[in-house]
Amino acid sequence: MRRKLHLLSIVLGLAATAALPIARADDIKPPSDYRHWFHVNTMIVDKASPLFNGLGGMHNVYINAAGEAALKAGGPYPDGAIFVTDLHDFTLSDGSYVEGPRKTLAMMVKDAKAYAGTGGWGFQAFAGGDPAKPLVTDAAKQCFACHEPKKAQDYVFSSYIP
Amino acid sequence: MRRKLHLLSIVLGLAATAALPIARADDIKPPSDYRHWFHVNTMIVDKASPLFNGLGGMHNVYINAAGEAALKAGGPYPDGAIFVTDLHDFTLSDGSYVEGPRKTLAMMVKDAKAYAGTGGWGFQAFAGGDPAKPLVTDAAKQCFACHEPKKAQDYVFSSYIP
Repeated sequence: MRRKLHLLSIVLGLAATAALPIARADDIKPPSDYRHWFHVNTMIVDKASPLFNGLGGMHNVYINAAGEAALKAGGPYPDGAIFVTDLHDFTLSDGSYVEGPRKTLAMMVKDAKAYAGTGGWGFQAFAGGDPAKPLVTDAAKQCFACHEPKKAQDYVFSSYIP
Repeated sequence: MRRKLHLLSIVLGLAATAALPIARADDIKPPSDYRHWFHVNTMIVDKASPLFNGLGGMHNVYINAAGEAALKAGGPYPDGAIFVTDLHDFTLSDGSYVEGPRKTLAMMVKDAKAYAGTGGWGFQAFAGGDPAKPLVTDAAKQCFACHEPKKAQDYVFSSYIP
């Protein structure tokens, strides 16, 4: 009896899993309209930063309408919230940092169930913003490991600047 | 007869002028929704720049829907186009330039007739973004003198970065 119940719970568990909309990192595609989303902030990671090798450039951060109220409240974020970091090269010209071409388009997509293993966030990034060139194969290692300490802000580094 | 015609043309001229909607720099008010406009680019004017005293900070530049197609075409801009530069302080933290609070909200408003003396653009800026604290009293000297050399881009410094 115990064994039958156990099997049943496995079967029900599988059925429940199959019934859920499964969202994987390779389902994440770059949105076309993010330049019209709310511009959260900009940051430049310059050569002197220990993060330069992986994250050097000008980070223009946007959030979609689904996440905007949560950003202003400091989190937590509802399912459907999406952050985009539009990462560009920059040049230093006569004391000014000037935006250059796109390097990478990085995304965080909130779906508490689908991405339960990485704080409820799906992560993906695209070389040059090209949908055919995803860069994230292991979101836990490549993305979430750095975001995990920001649990109090629902794993988000950006904060609202009025 | 010649004198009468001349007087008439003056009177008609005055009447025509009175009938035009007169837009002056002190009519320009900060828009409330520019963070949802198209984000054009970001630039940081750092301490080493000769422009730092007047323009130091992180310049987040936006354009409204009326001007977006013209931006992508490199100008010229139609009446109603508005650029906003949301100028923020920044801090340099471990090699990264991080956005701080707002310093100034600066605007360019296109109205070819109303601002014919300054390239068809009205200029205004607000300390801290406060509508009660306009900074521009002489747009020709304070703003247009620097923009004038960019005539080929309709006096706009920003260009479209896809």
